[in-house]
Amino acid sequence: MPPTPALNSSSAALAAARGRIAPAYDAGLFRESGHAACDALADHLARSLANEGPVLNWHAPADNVAAAAAALRGEPAGSPDDIAGRVRGLIETALSRGQNLHSPRYIGHQVPASVPIAGLFDAVGSVTNQPMAIYEMGPFVSAAEEACVAALGAKLGYAPGTFAGFVTHGGSLANTTCLLTARNVLFKECWENGVPRTGPAPVIVAHGESHYCMARAAGLLGLGTRQVVKAALNDRRQIDPVRLDETLTGLRAEGVPIVAVAAGACATPVGAFDDLNAVADVCEKHHVWLHVDAAHGGAAAFSPKHRHLLDGVERADSVIWDAHKMLFVPALCAFVFYKNREHRFEAFRQDAPYLFDPSDPGLAEHDSGMKTLECTKRAAALGLWGTWATFGEGLFRDLVDVTFALARSLYEKLSAAEDFEPLNDPQCNIVAFRHVPDFLKDADDATLGRFQHDLRRDLVRSGRFYIVPTAKDGVPALRCTVMNPLTTEAHLDELMNELRTRGRRLGGHDE
Amino acid sequence: MPPTPALNSSSAALAAARGRIAPAYDAGLFRESGHAACDALADHLARSLANEGPVLNWHAPADNVAAAAAALRGEPAGSPDDIAGRVRGLIETALSRGQNLHSPRYIGHQVPASVPIAGLFDAVGSVTNQPMAIYEMGPFVSAAEEACVAALGAKLGYAPGTFAGFVTHGGSLANTTCLLTARNVLFKECWENGVPRTGPAPVIVAHGESHYCMARAAGLLGLGTRQVVKAALNDRRQIDPVRLDETLTGLRAEGVPIVAVAAGACATPVGAFDDLNAVADVCEKHHVWLHVDAAHGGAAAFSPKHRHLLDGVERADSVIWDAHKMLFVPALCAFVFYKNREHRFEAFRQDAPYLFDPSDPGLAEHDSGMKTLECTKRAAALGLWGTWATFGEGLFRDLVDVTFALARSLYEKLSAAEDFEPLNDPQCNIVAFRHVPDFLKDADDATLGRFQHDLRRDLVRSGRFYIVPTAKDGVPALRCTVMNPLTTEAHLDELMNELRTRGRRLGGHDE
Repeated sequence: MPPTPALNSSSAALAAARGRIAPAYDAGLFRESGHAACDALADHLARSLANEGPVLNWHAPADNVAAAAAALRGEPAGSPDDIAGRVRGLIETALSRGQNLHSPRYIGHQVPASVPIAGLFDAVGSVTNQPMAIYEMGPFVSAAEEACVAALGAKLGYAPGTFAGFVTHGGSLANTTCLLTARNVLFKECWENGVPRTGPAPVIVAHGESHYCMARAAGLLGLGTRQVVKAALNDRRQIDPVRLDETLTGLRAEGVPIVAVAAGACATPVGAFDDLNAVADVCEKHHVWLHVDAAHGGAAAFSPKHRHLLDGVERADSVIWDAHKMLFVPALCAFVFYKNREHRFEAFRQDAPYLFDPSDPGLAEHDSGMKTLECTKRAAALGLWGTWATFGEGLFRDLVDVTFALARSLYEKLSAAEDFEPLNDPQCNIVAFRHVPDFLKDADDATLGRFQHDLRRDLVRSGRFYIVPTAKDGVPALRCTVMNPLTTEAHLDELMNELRTRGRRLGGHDE
Repeated sequence: MPPTPALNSSSAALAAARGRIAPAYDAGLFRESGHAACDALADHLARSLANEGPVLNWHAPADNVAAAAAALRGEPAGSPDDIAGRVRGLIETALSRGQNLHSPRYIGHQVPASVPIAGLFDAVGSVTNQPMAIYEMGPFVSAAEEACVAALGAKLGYAPGTFAGFVTHGGSLANTTCLLTARNVLFKECWENGVPRTGPAPVIVAHGESHYCMARAAGLLGLGTRQVVKAALNDRRQIDPVRLDETLTGLRAEGVPIVAVAAGACATPVGAFDDLNAVADVCEKHHVWLHVDAAHGGAAAFSPKHRHLLDGVERADSVIWDAHKMLFVPALCAFVFYKNREHRFEAFRQDAPYLFDPSDPGLAEHDSGMKTLECTKRAAALGLWGTWATFGEGLFRDLVDVTFALARSLYEKLSAAEDFEPLNDPQCNIVAFRHVPDFLKDADDATLGRFQHDLRRDLVRSGRFYIVPTAKDGVPALRCTVMNPLTTEAHLDELMNELRTRGRRLGGHDE
């Protein structure tokens, strides 16, 4: 019997659909498109690294959104022959409107001019799609993450086999996961029954200038953002251990449950590293969970010259460390560590029998979904693994040493100048400062602060440099993080001169 | 005066470090490495797509971890000339030990054989590192995300300008963010003061087979995993609206606060789409927040043939939709939508003045960090944007139509076979079933379930097919998701025969 017309037509429609899909999965077209993509990226990198063109290609949001939306509405590539050209054209559109982190004049956020080849390893995970909720879905990428956890944990000073670790999507999620674990460990029934409803409300005691994600974690975890107690700081903006002791003593006296003390290595505004041994002593005395946010500073562990900044980190109950900061791999690749290996399943106590196979329970040890918020998780550690395996760990030492040293140079230049005021003696590669030209020597704080804001916006939108805003004692200021190892002293001199020129113009003092 | 020896030596050390760093940032070496990487990936894709080699290259975790760790301990590439070869070798190591999602015999998790070219667009974000906490850090990638939000929101049936949306790292985080918003909207002071400590404990009412992240969200948010009330299901494993009404009526009568009702479009185990209009009617009657997890099924919006599965989705207060599922882009790219645009800042109410510049407050609208858990966020929407702009939206329609149709074929084949038992009449591309050979016709549930587990593990480790475990009524079963459009009916026939052969051997009935 011949097929019915309906079935026939449906089959024909499906066959046509398969025909239209085929070019998207053609290996030859992928190869051609991949070469075109790499060429576009290499050309872009060559220009950026050679200090050509703007740092930021500024366009107002509406303009960029219109360009991005137009690409979605356009006719698709007409034939397979067009695909590689289309891919290259779209990439060039994106690059021509983007932020050029690889420019030596990008010295802004704690986001690096990442090692470009790291992005190629990331692309292996992307192109072949290797999510890893369970080991068998991403066996080698799971293993690469485990190898990185072991290697970084050793750098932090943990003994093999005693600690646990994994990668998650960013420092905010990593800090939240650690505080969740601390909450669940402190309140045994909290995961199942919710935040205790009796007794004084619990608090988190955090570095007085901790990242905003600490307060957010308190909001998220049902504790409340107002339940974050700010630890008092000394004049280097580090936690003052004596006053921390007083704070914890006071809380204990009132019977207030303390979920954790969150220290910084380093804190964001000026890169202040807490004295971790002193803080750990206080936490041990009061039997409080110590969490260390080493998102930025963890990398000091690779440098014999700067390792001392982390002394005591191995005493913390939990630590986070972003490889996408000072290990110079692309975002996101944030490591969570627990000193006590037993804590690895405390954040998310959950059965998921359809994922985690009871016929081989030992495998769950390697199933990332048991430990992380992510179920489907991208192969986030592959960029670090590949970079490390290509260039060796000495690269990370060199990157730390060079960028930390250059920030010190910037501090010295600012200190030596009459019209600049550094706001911290940098422990790492973060320098906060203000430009105070002659005509603002006697300005009030509001005027001085507004000037910093306006000056930065003028500079950044010009594309000449990328630096970021900050504040000290409530007064706006400027901030640099040296995050491109190709930035040199000459660029720093140019930055200061550029700020002077633009400042004069903004203040109406242009000659 | 000549420099002091100390300074001189330090400068020399830094110059040497800069020399060692240089190859990692050389644009020419990047180009060469990029071509080598693309060639390795193209060769791998060609083999996988041509149905050659195993689906899963199974190695025990210890073996893979040893291989990954050895690469970290090896000597770095000796000279710049070695770099491209080293990169290619490392990539080949990763691929030879990985999961081949592009094999037509991969029909397992709800993770696709992604469009390979999508990974190239992802790589643009990785290689040039375009995080986007604030608009000016990733202006074009922020805009590409906004353009995708607008386009997908329109597909869901929202009117332009009335809704809000953004991308976050995975469905679990997306669902958690929506439930966090619902919690904060219901309890006005909860973000700042914590979960209310008086009155009956609040609940979330979720589809009886919702993804495990729903219960996890309740644990995370301080509500407690036990506070998830399972909505009763009908015989197609959809929420029964009449019984949902009774449940909500009962909770209201007891004064229990209801954070949200979480429906599925579709739920994970068998891909059941709830009747969203019926559920929305009940939620409206009781004034309860309706959340829809459309992580998998959102893509039906692209297919005229299957669009009806989502009827009513535009009435939900919040919706999530993973592009890294049925839009076939690499993980992770999960969209969150709020029907009411005013809710976009409710999840995370937080000042971060050093990031969000008060001198241009309108820009905060485009700063993703105001709405997402991530501060530094990777350019997660670029893969979707580039794929859409290259191939047009028709590609997504075709991918839905082809994979849904093939799952129906599998269901029909299983139904027609004496020795297979399909467990759902598929609404999409998910089919659960059991293999019940003659010798197990009278087996008890425990024996039958153990057989499914053992059979799957045997099959999967052989590398012949990749399918996943599930359960129905507590008895283990098998499950396929058709996630590669190059899978054909012939592969499905082969799967059934492979299960028969391996089943006989496992049962000791091999001839």
